[in-house]
Amino acid sequence: MENDVTTAVLAAARSAKDAQPSLARLHRGDKDRLLLAMADALVERADEVVEANARDLAAADAAGIDAGLRDRLALDLERVTAVARQLRDAAALPDPVGEVIRGSVLENGLELREVRVPMGVIGMVYEARPNVTVDAAGLSLKAGSAVVLRGGSAALHSNTAIIGVLRSVLAAHDLPEDLVVGIDEHGREGVDVLMRARGLVDVLIPRGGAGLIRRVVENSLVPVIETGTGKTHVLVDASADLDQAVDIVANAKLQRIGVCNALETLLVHRDIAEEALARVVVPLVEAGVRLHADETSARLLEGTGAEVVPATAEDWDTEYLALELAVAVVEDLDAALAHIRAHSTGHTESILTRDLRSQQRFLAEVDSAVVMANASTRFSDGGEFGFGAEIGISTQKLHARGPMGLREITTSKWLVVGQGHVRP
Amino acid sequence: MENDVTTAVLAAARSAKDAQPSLARLHRGDKDRLLLAMADALVERADEVVEANARDLAAADAAGIDAGLRDRLALDLERVTAVARQLRDAAALPDPVGEVIRGSVLENGLELREVRVPMGVIGMVYEARPNVTVDAAGLSLKAGSAVVLRGGSAALHSNTAIIGVLRSVLAAHDLPEDLVVGIDEHGREGVDVLMRARGLVDVLIPRGGAGLIRRVVENSLVPVIETGTGKTHVLVDASADLDQAVDIVANAKLQRIGVCNALETLLVHRDIAEEALARVVVPLVEAGVRLHADETSARLLEGTGAEVVPATAEDWDTEYLALELAVAVVEDLDAALAHIRAHSTGHTESILTRDLRSQQRFLAEVDSAVVMANASTRFSDGGEFGFGAEIGISTQKLHARGPMGLREITTSKWLVVGQGHVRP
Repeated sequence: MENDVTTAVLAAARSAKDAQPSLARLHRGDKDRLLLAMADALVERADEVVEANARDLAAADAAGIDAGLRDRLALDLERVTAVARQLRDAAALPDPVGEVIRGSVLENGLELREVRVPMGVIGMVYEARPNVTVDAAGLSLKAGSAVVLRGGSAALHSNTAIIGVLRSVLAAHDLPEDLVVGIDEHGREGVDVLMRARGLVDVLIPRGGAGLIRRVVENSLVPVIETGTGKTHVLVDASADLDQAVDIVANAKLQRIGVCNALETLLVHRDIAEEALARVVVPLVEAGVRLHADETSARLLEGTGAEVVPATAEDWDTEYLALELAVAVVEDLDAALAHIRAHSTGHTESILTRDLRSQQRFLAEVDSAVVMANASTRFSDGGEFGFGAEIGISTQKLHARGPMGLREITTSKWLVVGQGHVRP
Repeated sequence: MENDVTTAVLAAARSAKDAQPSLARLHRGDKDRLLLAMADALVERADEVVEANARDLAAADAAGIDAGLRDRLALDLERVTAVARQLRDAAALPDPVGEVIRGSVLENGLELREVRVPMGVIGMVYEARPNVTVDAAGLSLKAGSAVVLRGGSAALHSNTAIIGVLRSVLAAHDLPEDLVVGIDEHGREGVDVLMRARGLVDVLIPRGGAGLIRRVVENSLVPVIETGTGKTHVLVDASADLDQAVDIVANAKLQRIGVCNALETLLVHRDIAEEALARVVVPLVEAGVRLHADETSARLLEGTGAEVVPATAEDWDTEYLALELAVAVVEDLDAALAHIRAHSTGHTESILTRDLRSQQRFLAEVDSAVVMANASTRFSDGGEFGFGAEIGISTQKLHARGPMGLREITTSKWLVVGQGHVRP
């Protein structure tokens, strides 16, 4: 059985690799027409997709899926239309392929150009969200790469239906269907094989919970772009504008709680702690947030009537993705920077301050993908950054850091043109 | 014992990580003065270094080291001076840190900047070449990163002496000595620990033979930049200028045989095969090159008196790094592209042609770090590209592709400055 899975997944990856050059030869117009045709086909065949999704939902309900996961899994005609719109949006984006990144003519007359080219084969491993299937396929194709898709098993029927539609459009455009390949049917063993498909898959992008990402990072022989985990900090500095701080902290914590750019730890400078806790934190408690407070903040909050839980060591490293918040009072900016250095996952941190020197130091010294001043961490997002699309948010330092758009799923190569040049 | 190594190497990596922020705060002038002081100190204390090297050489001679490795290991006063000059060259290079890569003001007034920042801690794993110790340390420091160095055990005394000199200069500049850390004393187990030091080491760069690189790529949990293996191809197209081809092929194969950008497989278009083999290949044989020839080229070479060995399947995938060359006659450009696609390591390939369409297709369709037309593969080099320094040549698609200079050992982060911005 395992040998069958190995053979099948390696064959799938190889067929994607063999198919990719046909895509690499297309110009932007052809790729955009392809994506628009895929959007049309998804809308035309939405009934099929919704029907397949109903089968996944029935199985999930029988297994007792939780409400949040069910919502992410569910598709109706409206959602299929929205997903098709994502393909149209991808078609509207500029083509990253072909960009001349830098170039020069060397002393000896050699012409040198670094140009942006497709990655090749992109492997996407994600959870049971059928919209990611469309999104990942559309963006990979636009960036000139073939894609091997592994969504959660709970979305098997939905993903199979969607991938079927996309492949039929490829065939209708005289392109190899294997530019989009699904390996959901091979389950977790399929992911294990994909992670070892070095030489066939050029990059693996895991999207989902911390467990999935850790598993891929630790086991993959294929290069990985680590995404997502956000133990995000906001520091309310001594000089913060508290009116702004109230709004920013509420926005960062409450606007959407289950996402990686939501606030997870609030640090408050001790010189402003009492007032800041009363004005900024108490409203969060009223909105249903459970506070995990260090000793000082717990003491200062005593008089406000806000209930708190004493913070444990784990709280400083926990990404709650829920109505929970770790709170600590810090001695000064150095203490805040040290706390962030010790506990940040390198996703996003923000300082709220009116002091120029504090802002400069925070922006310079915090070593995270996105470092902010006087803004909500919720802006750490490819859409907000104007990328038009987002594959994920990289928390690693290699290749891409922060929100990833089309450019971040390409690579480059050097073109060197001579006229008989030899090296002296 | 193994636990001791684990503890010691993790402590070394952690101390480098803790030291790095002091370096990140330095401006270019400070970093350059540091490198110049290191160069001076190496020259002043050259006797110490040469003496330590003599101990390594004595041990290597006793163990029966081969001449090539001995030459790379050996240091004398002249070579120490040359190595010090590399540090002065690094000081003269522009500082990559602080570059604003892109930036804009968003619709909502948020200011967005992507800036180049140091990687953090760079791990270098290489073979017994003491000059790499100086080079890797100098370039890492210039790029704002601390460095953990693991050279071959055969250079233990030399590396220890060199690292001692560099660390004393750091101390004299009131900087933490642990910005440069050596772990040679911990042997191969030390490398195993370093490869698992995720969170302490930001990138691992192996430099050396294919075995070393494979071992690091397959076992490292720390992100790796794969360097070096070059199964390099030159295609003599039907329309090639054979006068140029004679010079380019001789240069690519013979100028320096043990390097990754040296020619390893020559492909010849069948329409020009007989004349090309006689004019381009026969002189190589006369220069001592052993040919591993496919059937057609062997047959065509029969009349020339050049001796050939029949090529085996392995020859198409062997990086000889020696006076050996694989030769094949190809039906047409498509066959050449297919051969390269099947056997290239993605390092460097070159077409020799006078046909515009052939050049265009070759440059577009060959998926290697460096793709050339009418030039010797020996130009695939950071120095030749004008980078001023080279850490290695990346053959992977993630992060850096082709020759890597200072810029390629940095990362970036996003700075977002608001005035109380919350996400609607």
